[in-house]
This record gives sequence, C-alpha cells and structure tokens, in this order.
Amino acid sequence: MIFRFLSKLLRKHSKEEKRLAIAIKQIIGHKPFNLALYQLALSHTSASKSLQDGFKESNERLEYLGDAILGAIVADYLFKKYPFKEEGFLTEIRARIVNRESLNQLSRKMGIQDLIRYEGNPKSNFTYKSMGGDALEALVGAVYLDKGFHYCRKFVVRKIVLGHLDLDDIIENNQNYKSIIIEWAQKNNRDLKFEIVREEGSKHQRQFIAQVIIDDEPVAKGSGFSKKKAEQAAAEKTCRTLKLSSRP
Amino acid sequence: MIFRFLSKLLRKHSKEEKRLAIAIKQIIGHKPFNLALYQLALSHTSASKSLQDGFKESNERLEYLGDAILGAIVADYLFKKYPFKEEGFLTEIRARIVNRESLNQLSRKMGIQDLIRYEGNPKSNFTYKSMGGDALEALVGAVYLDKGFHYCRKFVVRKIVLGHLDLDDIIENNQNYKSIIIEWAQKNNRDLKFEIVREEGSKHQRQFIAQVIIDDEPVAKGSGFSKKKAEQAAAEKTCRTLKLSSRP
Repeated sequence: MIFRFLSKLLRKHSKEEKRLAIAIKQIIGHKPFNLALYQLALSHTSASKSLQDGFKESNERLEYLGDAILGAIVADYLFKKYPFKEEGFLTEIRARIVNRESLNQLSRKMGIQDLIRYEGNPKSNFTYKSMGGDALEALVGAVYLDKGFHYCRKFVVRKIVLGHLDLDDIIENNQNYKSIIIEWAQKNNRDLKFEIVREEGSKHQRQFIAQVIIDDEPVAKGSGFSKKKAEQAAAEKTCRTLKLSSRP
Repeated sequence: MIFRFLSKLLRKHSKEEKRLAIAIKQIIGHKPFNLALYQLALSHTSASKSLQDGFKESNERLEYLGDAILGAIVADYLFKKYPFKEEGFLTEIRARIVNRESLNQLSRKMGIQDLIRYEGNPKSNFTYKSMGGDALEALVGAVYLDKGFHYCRKFVVRKIVLGHLDLDDIIENNQNYKSIIIEWAQKNNRDLKFEIVREEGSKHQRQFIAQVIIDDEPVAKGSGFSKKKAEQAAAEKTCRTLKLSSRP
C-alpha cells in the first residue's frame, strides 16, 4: 500500500499526462491525486482497450457512478435552496439540470468535451451525441472517488451549478412541451397520442418524425435525432398551435 | 443559533417523542439529534397538516432527497463491490434494490412501516401501497440531513444492504420478466407488444389485466394492482410458456 503510494508520487508523468492534470485542475479547482481516474473518465467506449474477459476500460462504469452522485448532490442543493417548494417542483428542476441535453451543453461550456478520447470523425455531429454529457458524469464520479463526497459536492455546486447554470432561467423556461400538452389534455379530457410516423437516414444518422394526434386529428409534426426529440419538436409546435403557455 | 441549540437540548420531550427516539436509535444505530426530521420522515401526506400557502408538512420532500441519496450510496457500494462488472449489471442490480416493491419490503423488515403516521384504514392492503418504501427513503433523507453523508452511507450499507438484503440472491433471481422477453424478442426478431386489455374494480382498488402479444398472437395474460405488475405477471407466464430462463 505504502509502496504503491510512493511509486505513484515518484513516477514521472508524461507530457500528455501533465497537460491533462493542468486541464483537470482548471476544471475542478485542485490538482488531481489519482490522474488515472480522470483519464478513465475521459475515455469514450469507442477508444477503449479491451482487457481480458472482454472487459473494456472505458468511462461507462464511472458514468454510472457519477450520474448517481451528481443526482444526489443536485437534489440536496435544490432541497436546501428552496425550503418551501414541493417535491414535484424539485424533481422537475433537477430533471432539467441533469438531462442529457443540459449535460452535453455543460460539458462543452466547461471544456470537458475537448478532452475526451474517442474514435470517430470529430466533425460529425451525429457520432456519440451524448458523449459530452456522459464524460461530465464520469468526471463527477472520478472526483467523488479521488477527493470524497464533500469535495465533490463543492465542485458540483460551485463549478457546475453556480458556475454555469442560471437557475431562475431554468425555472422560468419550461421546455418540456410534451408534459405541458399531456397536462392540458388531461385537464380538458382530450384524447392525446404521440406517434412516430417515419424514420429516415442510416443506422448512425437516423432521424425520427413524430406526430401529435388529438381526438384522432393530427395537429403537428416534428423531427429530431431521437424519438424523444422528435416528440418534443412536435409538442412544441402543438403548444404554439393551441397557444399553450410554456410557463409553469 | 446557540440559543436554538441549547433550547433544543433542554426542551423536554414528550413520552411519544422519547418512544420515537428509541425506535429511531434501534433502526439507525444512534440517537437522533434533530428528532423533528424523523417525525417528518414518518408523516405520510394523508396525516399532514396544511400550513399557510397550502404548503403541507409531509415526508414528500424528504422522500425526494432520500431517494437520490439512497441511489447514490447503493451505486457507490455496488461500484466498489463489483470492480469488474459493467455498468449494465450495476444499473440492473441497483434497480432491483431500490425499486418500490423492494423498498416496501425493507420498510416492513426494518420496522419503519409501523412508525408511520397516516390517516386511513390500516387493515386495507390497497391504501397507499408505497407508503412504506416512501417512508424508508424519507428516513434516509432525514439521516443524511441529521448526521451527514458518511454516517448516512454507513447506515445504508450496514443496516439496509448488509442487514436485510441477500445480494447473491438478488443477482441470481432476475425477476424482471418483461426485460427478459424484450431481450429475447429483439434477439429473435419477433414483434412484441404489451397491452392493457382490461381494468377492473373501483378507483381505489383497481386491478389491471395485461396481455403479451408476439407476432400478433396473444401468448399470456396476467393481472395486478398496477399496470406494471400486470405486465410483469403476463411476462412471467410468457417466460414459462416460451421456456425462457430467468437467469441473467
């Protein structure tokens, strides 16, 4: 144990490792202790080495861990910041913060996106669309393992939530158009369906066309690179058509 | 601050409060500091007092927090216990531990169920079917706020995971029959549908009948007190009919 600790301290880092350590310090605020954790967090599965037994060395395990830790820290933060808000509000705002799209954006803003090791065409918008958000989650997992819960909480609150998110704006702008329509349909006793009416493109660049149908009447169509996004796009148009407000 | 601390120390507890403090100590291992947190965790919304602005004093906010904290701690525990398992395995086992049914069972085993304050008929099986699991989550939230993350992690690992769960058994018994069939259908290129074909009973005791349809042929039906349970029951029968193994 002590030997491993000393050898880690004394081992010479390569230039690339030193560069990564500096980049991590800029992102999380302090020098990493166990750099290997951060290297792993930034390894997309496409660039991962296969070890024995088919076990791959990619950031997927760290992403699983970081997802849970990030969710807990954001839950705690909102719980304390809004002592008089009910759990429905807290759940909704947390979902707006930790959803894939938001995490992808954060990953770009925080400069994590550029550090990811992956195989593929960097100019293509279609490859690995959630790679950035996944790496951000994996980084949270790495910080948790490297520095502990309290440090990780500070990192998430200061560098992610306070550093890059505008909570008032997130609360004001309810971009979940689908849930607005579902709520409206329930209130007004209307029959509502979301249907995927078409899929286009190749396996790796598939685009979906969704349609909103109210009382068997098609109302609006929308497209997107996932079923969910296509439905959201169709829902957004429906909101405009029906003049439904997006304010909660 | 100091005054509040002292008045809390010196305030006489009622007999009921003392009894609760002893029960909590038996469950979590140490005396609670802020008993009010635990009282809140054990207050079902049916027994909650409405405060001004329609804000209710029930365990729902604590449940939201505890759900996230419990998820993170279990994620961390499995991550470290199974260093060579992939994230799909970890996610699945975590879901089996923290699903509503499992949490309800744990709540009964740990004696939390009997401490919950609620309005309703205690003999009815139908009222508030997830009340126990919700209270367990809220209790985790209370421990986290009262004693901090590290204590809460010890509580979850020692008293919940090691104290009441048999991980080998959980791993061996894949009770998610629905996912087994979905996997099988994808592998074998079969068209699979789950349909709710009937609803029975009154609003508070509704029973659902689900049907599994493969290549437009009905295969099996199942019933349950929620759509999910009905689908699981139908899926279980389908697994037996198709002789699909439930071992992962």
